[in-house]
Amino acid sequence: MNAYILNFCPTGMVPTKHMNPHTPVSTSEIIEDVLMASELGASIAHLHARDQKTGEPTGDLNTFAAIIEGIRKYNKQLILCVSLSGRNVSDPALRALPLSLDGEAKPDMGSLTLSSMNFATQASINAPGTINYLAGQMALKGISPEVEIFDSGMSSCLNSLIKKTLMPPTVYANILLGNLFGAQPSFAHIAAITSSLPGNVVSSFAGLGSYQLRSNALALAAGHGIRVGLEDNIWFDHERTTLASNRSLLERITAIANLQQLTPATPTQVRERLGLQPGQGRYGLVPVADQYREAAHG
Amino acid sequence: MNAYILNFCPTGMVPTKHMNPHTPVSTSEIIEDVLMASELGASIAHLHARDQKTGEPTGDLNTFAAIIEGIRKYNKQLILCVSLSGRNVSDPALRALPLSLDGEAKPDMGSLTLSSMNFATQASINAPGTINYLAGQMALKGISPEVEIFDSGMSSCLNSLIKKTLMPPTVYANILLGNLFGAQPSFAHIAAITSSLPGNVVSSFAGLGSYQLRSNALALAAGHGIRVGLEDNIWFDHERTTLASNRSLLERITAIANLQQLTPATPTQVRERLGLQPGQGRYGLVPVADQYREAAHG
Repeated sequence: MNAYILNFCPTGMVPTKHMNPHTPVSTSEIIEDVLMASELGASIAHLHARDQKTGEPTGDLNTFAAIIEGIRKYNKQLILCVSLSGRNVSDPALRALPLSLDGEAKPDMGSLTLSSMNFATQASINAPGTINYLAGQMALKGISPEVEIFDSGMSSCLNSLIKKTLMPPTVYANILLGNLFGAQPSFAHIAAITSSLPGNVVSSFAGLGSYQLRSNALALAAGHGIRVGLEDNIWFDHERTTLASNRSLLERITAIANLQQLTPATPTQVRERLGLQPGQGRYGLVPVADQYREAAHG
Repeated sequence: MNAYILNFCPTGMVPTKHMNPHTPVSTSEIIEDVLMASELGASIAHLHARDQKTGEPTGDLNTFAAIIEGIRKYNKQLILCVSLSGRNVSDPALRALPLSLDGEAKPDMGSLTLSSMNFATQASINAPGTINYLAGQMALKGISPEVEIFDSGMSSCLNSLIKKTLMPPTVYANILLGNLFGAQPSFAHIAAITSSLPGNVVSSFAGLGSYQLRSNALALAAGHGIRVGLEDNIWFDHERTTLASNRSLLERITAIANLQQLTPATPTQVRERLGLQPGQGRYGLVPVADQYREAAHG
């Protein structure tokens, strides 16, 4: 199909209202931006929660539940992914908390960065045991991983997770380019990542800061999906004179796609492709869970 | 600079009026399309001549002269490149004939494919001696090569031509992707080509058939120039239901560029970058010519 996956990342952990007043921070702002993105073609929303008073990143279950239930009230098909980021939380059990959401608040996916690495100003620690633990928790609960790949080592590592059957039959991955300590959106770096990806991976390209547009445009031209939103990039222009909004970023990249006869895949199409059922466990195969127990404790 | 080279290839050797009635074949049609492309941002025009009666490709000097003089009557800055294609002519001296055009009809560049290869239905023979001869003729006459690269071997070969000083200080190359027997517009294939290119190469990406749009879009996103026109692709859509015109192809790809804050470089900017003077010899350094005599005869 010529339909591309549009993964929408409205908020993230870094942008603030002070940096960009268009950043959706309150529960209702996040819900509104996600529903707007859905109308513009998003099939996946990558969600971070923020403390409703301080605006700081939070793993608070009630906040996540309010966001997910608020979106599902209007849109049950959209694929919802919760961030399990380790930037501010190191205890794997705390990071896994959003996976305990259930019922209408149960997420379809959880993010999973496939190694420790540096961002520009801080380390992001994802030790092997943490990765196995989070992947195993997702397998047990029938929540699919949204794999995050920042460099070629992380795509190689994916092979070993698949061998351990800690991954679903079809794996969704975001390839994030332009991080100071990671792969850049160059042909050579992308080729190193994509040529070492297992065959059962469906991927979208994200770009940090001003690399978002470049990474998204490369992805579309080459038949990959895209991740776009203020989480990765708060500026509309390369010169950083105009602040972006989620709408302006979405409208620009979908216009570039349209000119190439590319249409965004519907959430239903993406659910079929990834084997995701709406509102319930996805794969949750017993062998996966058994194998996880071995991998995690063995 | 964020300005990209737009190389316009209106006619080529293959398209006919029967295949696509928008194909410019007569001298006046080619001139009109080139001037239209210039208004839309083209800085280089890659020219093939056609017999004015049969429409067949021709190396006829009068026809080339009429096209070049016709364009220059209205636009003296546009960089004009003559094809020295060996598809239908094998004698290197015959292929080099358009390089003998002088005065107002003297071309700025001549095409130079850097190896023998196959197209889908025929071989294209460019033996080492022919390449050296054509490069040497251009060096002697102060006409710059428009290098054509279809696969990674051809970018490697460029290094040896530069060592022989058969190339100008800054080399312009079209990287042509999607040929059945050549490199495809994939990250791995492009990385193999671009990572082996010498540092003094300025390149544009072309794509054959339906790969034109993909190759152009990848090029723009990654900061390269583009070659676009009916020579490479006669269909507007991937399904081949709508015939393209040179205008429709140009308008689409410049719209994609505009959305990425990219503007086409002016002919003057490209002349400065490539060291091309309007209407006269470009490099024509004596050491180049001397070296050529050694390389061609030694």
